[in-house]
Parts: sequence; C-alpha cells; structure tokens
Amino acid sequence: AGTFEVMGTPYCGKGEPSQVIRVGHRRGDATVDMTDGASIAALFAGIGRFDALVVASGSVAFNALTEMTDEQWQLGLQSKLMGQINLTRAAIPYLNDNGSITLISGILSEEPINWGVSATTINGAIEHFVKGAACELPRGLRINVVSPTVLEESMSKYADFFPGFVPVPAARVAQAAAGGAERGRRQRGEAAASGAAGWRRPAAEPARHCGGWRCACGSGLAGGCEG
Amino acid sequence: AGTFEVMGTPYCGKGEPSQVIRVGHRRGDATVDMTDGASIAALFAGIGRFDALVVASGSVAFNALTEMTDEQWQLGLQSKLMGQINLTRAAIPYLNDNGSITLISGILSEEPINWGVSATTINGAIEHFVKGAACELPRGLRINVVSPTVLEESMSKYADFFPGFVPVPAARVAQAAAGGAERGRRQRGEAAASGAAGWRRPAAEPARHCGGWRCACGSGLAGGCEG
Repeated sequence: AGTFEVMGTPYCGKGEPSQVIRVGHRRGDATVDMTDGASIAALFAGIGRFDALVVASGSVAFNALTEMTDEQWQLGLQSKLMGQINLTRAAIPYLNDNGSITLISGILSEEPINWGVSATTINGAIEHFVKGAACELPRGLRINVVSPTVLEESMSKYADFFPGFVPVPAARVAQAAAGGAERGRRQRGEAAASGAAGWRRPAAEPARHCGGWRCACGSGLAGGCEG
Repeated sequence: AGTFEVMGTPYCGKGEPSQVIRVGHRRGDATVDMTDGASIAALFAGIGRFDALVVASGSVAFNALTEMTDEQWQLGLQSKLMGQINLTRAAIPYLNDNGSITLISGILSEEPINWGVSATTINGAIEHFVKGAACELPRGLRINVVSPTVLEESMSKYADFFPGFVPVPAARVAQAAAGGAERGRRQRGEAAASGAAGWRRPAAEPARHCGGWRCACGSGLAGGCEG
C-alpha cells in the first residue's frame, strides 16, 4: 500500500505506510504545479494506483479587506482551493477502493484575524468542498480535512498575524492527517485545530441522506465523511 | 436613506426604505456585470452614497463531482463568490456610516446534495467571507449573509435537485435580508435557512477579538457580525 503525499510536511507519524511518494512544487520524489490540470494529470499517470492522497499545500494572500487586489483573491482561489480540488478530482481514478483523500484548511476558517479574510474564505470553502465531495465519492473512497492552527515551524514567518494563537507542532498535525488517511471510516479534521489544548474529537453526527446517497456528512465546519 | 439592491428579488418586505435602487444584469434601475470590477465601479460611481447593499445573485454550476469541468468550477468562483466579494469591496467607500451589506449563500452549505458540490463549496466560502470581513469593516459597517433553502419560486427549475427539501417563499427570505439590513447590530443569516420549519434564531455568540478588532463573529456557518 502506497501513501501518496503532495507538497506537504511528512504526514505519517504513526502507522507508517509501506511507501510514501513525496511530491512538491520544485522538489521531492516528483514535482507538480497544483494549479495546472495537465501537470497533475501527468503526475498521477506516472505514479499509477495508490491508497491515500494527503495534501498540505496551497497559497493564500494576506492583506487588509480594503486593500486586497483581484490578483490576491485569485491566488487563494486558484492555488489553495482549486489546487486541492484539482488534485482530488484527478486522484479519484487512481485511488484504490476504500482509499482516502486528506486536504488541509486552517484555523482561520473558525477564528478570523485582521488581514486574514481570504484565508478565512478559502479555508471555509475547502471544508465545505470536503463535506460536499464526501457525498459523491465512489468505491468507498473517504475524504477528510485537517484544520491546524498556526504551525510552530511557521511562527517565524506568521507570528505577527496570529497574536494570541497557540501554535501546534507539524508532527501533531501529521498525526491527525495519518488518522484521517488510515483509520476507520471517518476522522474529523477539527481534531488538529485546537493546538496545545489537545485535540477535540467532536461527537459523531448522525448519518444523513444526500440526494439519495448514504453518507455521514458532518455538519461541523471540518467534516470528514464516510464514503 | 436609500437601500441599494443588486440583482435580487425585492428584499424589503417590512420597514420599506425610502428609496430602493434595483440593479440587475440586464434590467433594473441600473445594470451591472458583477464579475467585472470596472462595471461595478461605474455603477457605484453613478449612484453615490447609500445605506444598504443587498445582493441576491450569482451563478453556480450543478454537476457530478467526477464530471465537473474547470469552467464549471470557475463559474461559481467568479460569479457567485467573487461577484459578491467584488460588490462588497466596491460598496465600502459608498456606504454611509453604520450601513450594511447583505449577501446570499444557500442551504447547500449545510445540506450537501448530489451534483451540488460546487454550491456547497461556494456557499460555505461566502459564509466564511462574511465572518472574516465583519472583523475588518470600517465605520460601523455591518455584514450579514442570508442562507435560504430552495425558493418556492425556483422549484419548477430545481425540484429535481432538492428532493425532500421544503421550499421557502422568496418573500420570507426577503424579510430575513431586510432584518439584516435594517435591524439592530447583527442578524444571523441562518434565520432563513430552515424554510417551513420556521426561522431558527441562533443563540448570540460571545464577542471575540479578531486580531485586535472588537467584533462579534458568529462561529456558526452563517455568521453576521457587529462592525
């Protein structure tokens, strides 16, 4: 079983998979431009079938609401949001039955900050994409989203934006993602959001019908779903 | 005091404002292309100052997750999402102090359906944009989002997509928007989401600091905030 990882920090703290293919924009076992469908298609065609896709990448611009440019808005939409949606769509035919997809959002969907309106918007969009996609994924495929707070490893760059936030080590986020990829049927990304306060594990949501498909879409912001 | 309304059904069931300027894509007191920043700028320059912006427009494509094209994804991003964000950004300098902005999302952010993954994503993004923007709006400006279920008036077109959903009359949604625009300091868009079951009025959220700005950002999906 190979875990496929795109452009992320190593996400396999526990339950190490037998093979990890690390993919980055410029370095790794392979490279990809996640904003370019042709680049993604070539990447997956070169790798073949796999069990889990874990994405921990995507850019978003930070600026004041009244200063954000069109280009800054498009960066978040085309990179972090559509990049992850593009990877998800392209991965489906290559994922083995009951395989999994794990995306990344971020705490700003829940805790807005100054200059963070694009990140709040994009992270919320990703969490909702996961909730919607979970209803339609074929062959028992699962999809989850991990929503970390600011990473300890990123504080040198982002500390000024996140006053009062308690950072979380990337390794802890990695455990949440590994849980989503490997464990059981569903794992809520919110687990990684609360940083040093420990992981919250929300109560299970009742299963719902989504237009005739049986699924267990969480009604929370970061919904992981049973395929 | 003039209420400014962009491309919407009439949203002023109660507390009729002294002037309503109706704007549509092709008809109305004025017209605008909400995906075009220059068109929006020209519109507001022609109107001058106003008290409330109410938007009830924007397109999203419906298709299966595995069949959605790049163009269909971009439609929702550029029309319903960025269209409303563009209108919001451009309206700020023209809004009188303590004026309001009311946007529209939709029930699919909470209740995913087959073929609805883009709408779920875009509606969630809009709700999060409102939550983030509320923290940064200047001069006491307020922003709210109304999240209606399928409209009675739209059932002839959308009934097949919404099995089991109880439609809501547009007039009832209009009341929610009027409440957001005219009433008090904050009004949660979720109020209009539950259709025939009546409006839910969520408990008030405690005020929070958002990067040093005092605001009352709702933690729910459809958050209206005190400016």
